[in-house]
Amino acid sequence: MPTPISQYGEFGLIDHLTQNTQHYQHSTIKGIGDDCAVLNHEGKQTIVTTDLLLEGIHFDLMYTPLKHLGYKAVVVNLSDIYAMNATPQQITVSIGVSARFSVEALEALYDGIHTACKYYQVDLVGGDTSSSLTGLCISITAIGTADSQHIVYRNGAKVGDIVCVSGDLGAAFVGLQLLEREKKMYLENPNIQPDLEQQQYVVGRLLKPEARRDIIALLQSHQIQPTAMIDVSDGLSSELLHICRQSKVGCRIYENQLPMHPDTQQLSFRFNMVPTTCALNGGEDYELLFTVSPQHIDILEELDTFSIIGDIVAAEEGCILISENNKPYPLVAQGWQHA
Amino acid sequence: MPTPISQYGEFGLIDHLTQNTQHYQHSTIKGIGDDCAVLNHEGKQTIVTTDLLLEGIHFDLMYTPLKHLGYKAVVVNLSDIYAMNATPQQITVSIGVSARFSVEALEALYDGIHTACKYYQVDLVGGDTSSSLTGLCISITAIGTADSQHIVYRNGAKVGDIVCVSGDLGAAFVGLQLLEREKKMYLENPNIQPDLEQQQYVVGRLLKPEARRDIIALLQSHQIQPTAMIDVSDGLSSELLHICRQSKVGCRIYENQLPMHPDTQQLSFRFNMVPTTCALNGGEDYELLFTVSPQHIDILEELDTFSIIGDIVAAEEGCILISENNKPYPLVAQGWQHA
Repeated sequence: MPTPISQYGEFGLIDHLTQNTQHYQHSTIKGIGDDCAVLNHEGKQTIVTTDLLLEGIHFDLMYTPLKHLGYKAVVVNLSDIYAMNATPQQITVSIGVSARFSVEALEALYDGIHTACKYYQVDLVGGDTSSSLTGLCISITAIGTADSQHIVYRNGAKVGDIVCVSGDLGAAFVGLQLLEREKKMYLENPNIQPDLEQQQYVVGRLLKPEARRDIIALLQSHQIQPTAMIDVSDGLSSELLHICRQSKVGCRIYENQLPMHPDTQQLSFRFNMVPTTCALNGGEDYELLFTVSPQHIDILEELDTFSIIGDIVAAEEGCILISENNKPYPLVAQGWQHA
Repeated sequence: MPTPISQYGEFGLIDHLTQNTQHYQHSTIKGIGDDCAVLNHEGKQTIVTTDLLLEGIHFDLMYTPLKHLGYKAVVVNLSDIYAMNATPQQITVSIGVSARFSVEALEALYDGIHTACKYYQVDLVGGDTSSSLTGLCISITAIGTADSQHIVYRNGAKVGDIVCVSGDLGAAFVGLQLLEREKKMYLENPNIQPDLEQQQYVVGRLLKPEARRDIIALLQSHQIQPTAMIDVSDGLSSELLHICRQSKVGCRIYENQLPMHPDTQQLSFRFNMVPTTCALNGGEDYELLFTVSPQHIDILEELDTFSIIGDIVAAEEGCILISENNKPYPLVAQGWQHA
């Protein structure tokens, strides 16, 4: 029997969900339990980002397990901190929940939140729970630190810089199409079993993304400081245009350099979509897109961890995709429609 | 003709609403426009609080003007920062809005947010807008600074300390009852005009509260460091019990010392409520409740700015209200009944 939230009340519920909160960071002086949290960043700069996730807009609970949702809600915020070349340290989590959620459902959500905190060594230091008249609402703020000279903004790309991206692109978008199709089929005929066995990669990319802490560490270990960086949450085109606009430069990227997983390509075809379109405009990959000085090209090629997808050119040359048959197409931000 | 939100799109809308954002703080290195904001708190400790406000739960747009709502949403967060004896410096604001809101409505909301930022000299440094399937959802995180030795927690109250509260209590709660009654009458008969003319005080306390920055400044200017402090958002009883539980002490407060505005008292009677109940359990006053060492009693009495409502006693003596006819009643977090 699921336990109704009303059994705890507002204060009781947040106490219950956060009672086993661990701290991993020296910088957390005071966590949950006062008017505010208190942090000691010891002279480093403080990096802040926030995200609001709303049921039916950003996630669909029909195919999103609550533990995964909690994990992902943390990860998408940490990804923004890493995209500044900074180290996440603390998060606050507020949730609004309607009466249709049980205590066990929220425990699963917080299980995912705590799991992400442990994996990324960030401290949950505040937030609250509230009732909601409708669906589930999750608001997370992530706080990190960095030395000022290490912070990487979007506006530092220079003509001649190399454009790199980590991992592969478009898989989360294709995974979403797959889950939406299965949902539609299920709603039409609840006896049909989902056919996801061969699709673990793309579904995993959507439901359990990771923030690229490893990329930041790798770049630092090779003393490579990107000139501009952003995480790919709204699609490569959109993010690249952000960097170019803010850096007042243009770019040239090559279709045949865009990294895609074989499953992403296969499924794109099955859904009658052009794989390149998925790579350019599919969001929620949470890979890091960055520009670096060409002096680092030898190390980058040796590392073989990133894809070098193009270079930065003068603003007048525009933002261009060179297709496989060597034709130029202007990049446009399609915008990414969430689940 | 109201402008539909769809005319702007997600990025366009947040750009539009935040285009005139001013910065007031040296500590804001980078505001809106990158993956994260960057703050330089220069060795001070960083204070963080967050609040989620949901339509139908925390506010009713039938009697809450959007500009006031924006202002109040900022103020309730700043109040938490002041309650740590800290100085607010930055906020992030995320909103979820359904299609029934126009651009003009959101401009009014942000007008209130910007007005509060200017008045309290805090910088709006991040956040986003998102669609919502239902009502309006506002998530604010406030960030402040303090020297570690100045921070006041809830757990520092000592036996013998004096219990003080700023301003007066219960007015916002009575204001809410008044507006709820007017709403009910209006829904029954839309031709009835609201009768609020004589009730500006209590309605103002609900719809446009202020955070007590002045109290923090006054205490500092007299070198008075409270031993424990909290802001009154859930009612005096509830907040006092938080301080006593976390400080492992008890308290004795006096019914005849509880500060109430004459309008609050009058309206309580009109609604058949006991004024003391409103003062003890009415929330959203955003006054500061604090304990101070008895060595400061002469200055406090001379200042005549706070109400001295009781004192801190040993935990074994419990948390007690002494009634006007000198009888002891245990304080409870909700539903205290006057005998």
